[in-house]
Amino acid sequence: MQVHEFQKMMRHIYSQRDSAPGLEGTYDWLVDEVQELGEALKTHNKRALENEFADVIAWLASLANVANVDLERAALSKYHNKCPKCGHSPCQCVF
Amino acid sequence: MQVHEFQKMMRHIYSQRDSAPGLEGTYDWLVDEVQELGEALKTHNKRALENEFADVIAWLASLANVANVDLERAALSKYHNKCPKCGHSPCQCVF
Repeated sequence: MQVHEFQKMMRHIYSQRDSAPGLEGTYDWLVDEVQELGEALKTHNKRALENEFADVIAWLASLANVANVDLERAALSKYHNKCPKCGHSPCQCVF
Repeated sequence: MQVHEFQKMMRHIYSQRDSAPGLEGTYDWLVDEVQELGEALKTHNKRALENEFADVIAWLASLANVANVDLERAALSKYHNKCPKCGHSPCQCVF
């Protein structure tokens, strides 16, 4: 599924839920889900891990909906086939 | 672009970078990018906001690569056309 289709699907499922908490509340949910992903990473439980990755991308898409940002266009505008810092793929930055 | 294609593109651009810090270090980068997204949300600067959304989904894809998780499959397994809690679309959960 394309990124923008996933974002659109999230809008359809959750438009009513997401309208209430607004930007700040939706962002706080995303932060909570990122913390849960961090906990799941420590467990090495693949199913729990997949579950938390799903929640993070779902809340990221919901937040993008509330912020009126096209997540796919934003991502490809910056990262399309190259590192935005060095301009190469594979990235040749020194870390 | 499909979610799994974006994840694959991130792997191609950053496989060398991401192999060094491992799960914990890559997760810490994701957390930093989520914090930067939170700051950008306060500015109401659309371009800055798109830039930070791009970074968060890029680092989420990189983390999924390091964790060996298929982000698209995980997302659709949980959220395909329905809320995973109530099973409806639009969601009918009471918040």
